[in-house]
This record gives sequence, structure tokens and C-alpha cells, in this order.
Amino acid sequence: MRAAIRRGPAIVVDECEIPPPGQGQVRVRTHHCGICGSDLHAIHHFESFIDYGRRAGLLTGRIDPGRDVVLGHEFCAEIVEFGPGTERALKEGAMVGAFAVNFDEKGAEGVGWSNHYPGGYAEYMVLTESMLVPVTNGCPSERAALAEPMAVAIHAVNKADHQDSAYMVVGCGPIGLAIIAELKARGLGPVVAVDYVAERRAVAERLGADLLVDPAVGDPHDHWAGLDVPYGPVVYPRAQSRARRAVLFECVGVPGMLNRLIDAAPRNAQIIVAGVCMAPDSIEPSLAINKELEIKFSMAFSADEFRQSMHRICEGELDVSPLISRIVGLDELPATFDELLTAPRSAKVLVDPRR
Amino acid sequence: MRAAIRRGPAIVVDECEIPPPGQGQVRVRTHHCGICGSDLHAIHHFESFIDYGRRAGLLTGRIDPGRDVVLGHEFCAEIVEFGPGTERALKEGAMVGAFAVNFDEKGAEGVGWSNHYPGGYAEYMVLTESMLVPVTNGCPSERAALAEPMAVAIHAVNKADHQDSAYMVVGCGPIGLAIIAELKARGLGPVVAVDYVAERRAVAERLGADLLVDPAVGDPHDHWAGLDVPYGPVVYPRAQSRARRAVLFECVGVPGMLNRLIDAAPRNAQIIVAGVCMAPDSIEPSLAINKELEIKFSMAFSADEFRQSMHRICEGELDVSPLISRIVGLDELPATFDELLTAPRSAKVLVDPRR
Repeated sequence: MRAAIRRGPAIVVDECEIPPPGQGQVRVRTHHCGICGSDLHAIHHFESFIDYGRRAGLLTGRIDPGRDVVLGHEFCAEIVEFGPGTERALKEGAMVGAFAVNFDEKGAEGVGWSNHYPGGYAEYMVLTESMLVPVTNGCPSERAALAEPMAVAIHAVNKADHQDSAYMVVGCGPIGLAIIAELKARGLGPVVAVDYVAERRAVAERLGADLLVDPAVGDPHDHWAGLDVPYGPVVYPRAQSRARRAVLFECVGVPGMLNRLIDAAPRNAQIIVAGVCMAPDSIEPSLAINKELEIKFSMAFSADEFRQSMHRICEGELDVSPLISRIVGLDELPATFDELLTAPRSAKVLVDPRR
Repeated sequence: MRAAIRRGPAIVVDECEIPPPGQGQVRVRTHHCGICGSDLHAIHHFESFIDYGRRAGLLTGRIDPGRDVVLGHEFCAEIVEFGPGTERALKEGAMVGAFAVNFDEKGAEGVGWSNHYPGGYAEYMVLTESMLVPVTNGCPSERAALAEPMAVAIHAVNKADHQDSAYMVVGCGPIGLAIIAELKARGLGPVVAVDYVAERRAVAERLGADLLVDPAVGDPHDHWAGLDVPYGPVVYPRAQSRARRAVLFECVGVPGMLNRLIDAAPRNAQIIVAGVCMAPDSIEPSLAINKELEIKFSMAFSADEFRQSMHRICEGELDVSPLISRIVGLDELPATFDELLTAPRSAKVLVDPRR
């Protein structure tokens, strides 16, 4: 089958083998698969990506970066073949997403994070039947493919304190935008959206962000006081009536960003780190302790959050259509990766391997 | 009056002026005052200490490090004189602690963190009457002086997740030990106490720590699995029945320590940072995100936590006596600072300026 393969620090379109569906597995045809920031990290930072996974005990730690990997874990696909020992509650032709972990006689292994199980940048995948989540309500495949990144956003938003908080989303790439979508779908706010890129701020606006800030033009932290968040020197006595708490989502993931937030954040703020910084980073703990900040690192989601995400998208409770920038074929993936790695202006780009 | 003065990077015993009690203020005679880790930082790191305070908007940011400062903010003292405009609900001779902030016509200023208001390393202090907290129940002054560091511990423990958690206290200096005392006073555990120094581990044992680890001999993180905390690679499917969450208290505050905990901690652990690291520090965010760690920086306490701390010590609900290593006079302070800065073996050392 055709696939876009991570081979060395490049994406190469080539033929590859698809494993036959094993015990309890199904073969699916990929309709749409999103490009994730982690897929981008896998181009130039794959060794450290794997090393961090290994040190944290994750399945990604088992990948051999010297061998081919077909990336892609944000997919919507059609069941085309059942392997042995399957229950077949869903039928051939059914559309599904999946919590992207496969089980076989060797144990658990990621889908799209594996030398063995190709991900969604390929015409076909093998998935474990028990991990499938059906697409319902006739939801278009390209929207259902957003169930994965929206689950990441739901998970990050679940970690936040929502007792009269004011929100700042720093970085309006796909995850920052998905977090804005989730906050506004829950009726939460005010939400300040921060990004240098006008196209991404425009998507944030369509998703309902209350305030858009281009940090090249103004300091986003100038807005805290106007949002009833105490900002600046401690005022004694400390009683502050009707004060909002600041919740910041760090969705950039480059070195230095976390400490810029530690330096600029209001006292007692909560920082949810959803952007993955691939290098060691320097922070000033004395600033964080003097402000009593709280930093929660957020990654992935639970199986339940994934099911919720798919359900809410399919039922129209979460309108993810503003997040979708465009859909490309496999042949366009190398150039798309180049754009997203160098000068990203898009939100979510999906690949349709049928094209 | 006599005082131990921070003058340049040294403690010097000398005479100094005591300001007259102003509007709403009282003059007190210091009975006991504890040496805090922050006081130690004020010897060699005073400039950055002040700079971090300034950047975080704290009162400490206003100190001029080139001028004398009489340190000491963990005190118990006797009221000896009332200034104008005082309410005098307490009487002369009453023993008090205080939330160490003074108010005057210029605003708020720290006590013991000021070029103007001497702290407890002096025979006398001036305090704002409304900030006084009375010592009750005939509680000995040296124990009441522990209300301040115990409030720091209460505050740190209040930040932790206590839904079936297992605790590790890394560093058994005064704050680590106070945290152990508070955890055990609340009936929480198991508590693993970690320190290189045998004397400090012995105090941790007296305070009820369930497991003592000398990291020169064994890896404290080897104990997680035995405490029902999932440790090591992620196991799929993730359902883990009756699993405890790990809560780690970082009470060391030297560069590198936080990332050692990020590297060694179980997945989903909560790290409460109570040790103040005075230098920029390097962390590996990808490890923290892959493990979904939560880092809460904890400093000081609320006025209510301070009152609670004093009350519980006076009522005998918190036995702080194991924390007190010894009581010294002003003349012994320079040598005591030297010991605590170079090879600390003590828990809390108090100064009694009446000696």
C-alpha cells in the first residue's frame, strides 16, 4: 500500500507492507488523519522524543528511530476486514476512530508510533477491535478525525481550575485552538488568545475567543487587571473580593516559553503545559515560588475522554470545522511538513490517503 | 539595643536603633526567634533574593541590600509598650507571635525583611497591633516561635492531594521536618523521609515518618511499588485498582533537585516545591509532560493558616518539640549561620536575644 513514511529526518512517500489483522484485530481503510505537533517533533527530534518516552515508561520509547515509521494517530477510518477472534459488533463499512494502542501476543504497542503498526499516513491500518470508537450520527470523517486532538484539549481543560477563572491560551496552533474551542463550548471565559500569526488568531476568533492578542504588537499580560485578575505587587491586607484566578495554557512548546509565563503570570496562576518542549529548559524556581504558581503538565487523554470527544463531535456539541485548514493527499505531505515545521500559518491539516 | 545584623554577606553582632512604636504599633521584647532557610539565603544570595521578590511583587523586593538588615521573622515576643492609637486588647507582658508585616503611613513593610523594621534577631521589635496573634494556654515561647515555620508546612500540606496518597519528603531540614509533623498530625501516610544526615532522619523518625531513607545508601524511589504507587512503564489497559498517588515534597532547594524528582517520580505524581532554589534551574519538560506531573510551588501561608498553626501548637495538637535542636544567644548567631550554611546537622535553631 502507499504511505508517507518517516525515514530518517524526512517524510518519504513509498510503498509499505500492511500487516494482516491478527487475533482480535481489524483492517481499516484510512479516510482522514490529522498532522499532530508530535508528528512534527518526530522529524528532527525523534531520538530525544523516543528517549523521553523510554524514560517516562511510554510505548513510544520502544520505537527504533533507524527504521521506517508510518506516523499518524489522529484518524478516522472505515472497517474493511475482520481478523480472527473478533466480535464484529460493528459491521464492514462502519466508520471508526480508535484509542491508538494495539494489543497482540507481544503486549501493547502504539498505532502510528511503531515500527510494526502503521499509522494513518497510510492507505490501511490494523487496529485492535476493542479500542474502536464508532462514528455516529453521520458525522463527516474529517470532523471525526478531530476526536483525538479534541480529546487532548478536553483533557487539558479538565486539569484546569474553573472556579471563576480567566483564561489565556498562549499559542494558537491546533492544540491551543482546540482548547479555545473546548473552553467556549463549556461556556467558560474570558479567553485571551495569543499568537503571532493572523490566520491562527482569525480561527481563534471564529471559535469564540474573547480577546485576540498579537504579542508583536501588545503585551497579552497587560490585560489581566481588566479581567479582574489581581496583577502586580502584593497588596496588603490581602483580601481581594471578586478576584478571578488566571489559568494559562502553554501551547507553544519551545525552550524559554515556560519561564516567560512564570515571569509574566499573575500570582497564584495555574499554568497548564500542553505544548511539548523537546529540549531541557531553564526556569527560575524562585519566581515560581514567590508567586506560588501551579504547573500542570498535560498529555493525551483517558479512553473515556476520547469517547466523550467523539460523541460530542458527532452530536454537533463541539463544532470543530473552524479548526480544519485543509485536506491534502499523501503526495503533498512532505511539502506540508516543511511548511508546518518552518512557517506554520495553518490550524489542523488532514491527510486523505485515498486521494 | 543589641542585634545580630546582616551587614554585607555576614552576620555581625552590634548595637542598633529601635524605632519608636508608631500609630497602631507596639514594642515587643523578643524571647525566641527561629533561623529560617530564607535567612540563610539572605547571606550569600541577598541580591537575587531581593530581585526575585521585586519581580514577584513582594515586600522583600524593596530592601536595600547595601544597608543593614536585622533578620528574623519566626518569633515569639512579649508586649512591653503600646504606641498611639492602639486598642490594647492584649496587655503588657502578653506573649505574642505575629504575621510579620507592619503598616505605617508609607504602607506595608516586612518585619525582619526591612531596612527599617528589625526582626527577631534583636532584643526588641516594633509590630503592628492588628497583626499580633496571642500565645495561649501557657505555651512555652520557644514552641510558640515555631508557629511560623509550622504555618509554612500547613500551607504546603494544604496544597497536596490527600485522596489515598503516599508521601515522600525530600530533605529533612526544618521545613521538611515540619511537613512530616503536619502530615502525621493529620494521620496521613505512609510518609517516606529522605535525608543524608542521620541526625535529621532521627528527628523525622521521632515525628512519625514511616520509612527513613539515606539516599547515599538506597534509592528512595525503590519504595514506590511497595507503597502501592504504580511505578515504571505504563501498563495497558490502564485500569489500576487501589493505586495510591505519589505526593513529593521538595524541601532541598538546590539546582538540579527538581529535575531529579521529575526524572524519578512516578507518573501522575504531585510535586510540592517548598525548598527555595535561588538560581535558575534546568528541567526536562518532556519528561514532566510524558509523566503528566503536577508541580505546585508553595511559599508562606495565609493569616488564617498562621492563626491555626499557633492555636494547634498552644493547644498541644501539634508537638513541635522534636523540631527544636537548640537555643543560642545573639553572640552565637554568626557561628550558627556558618554551621547551617556549610554542614547543617540541626533541625530548628532558635535565638534568644535575652541571653
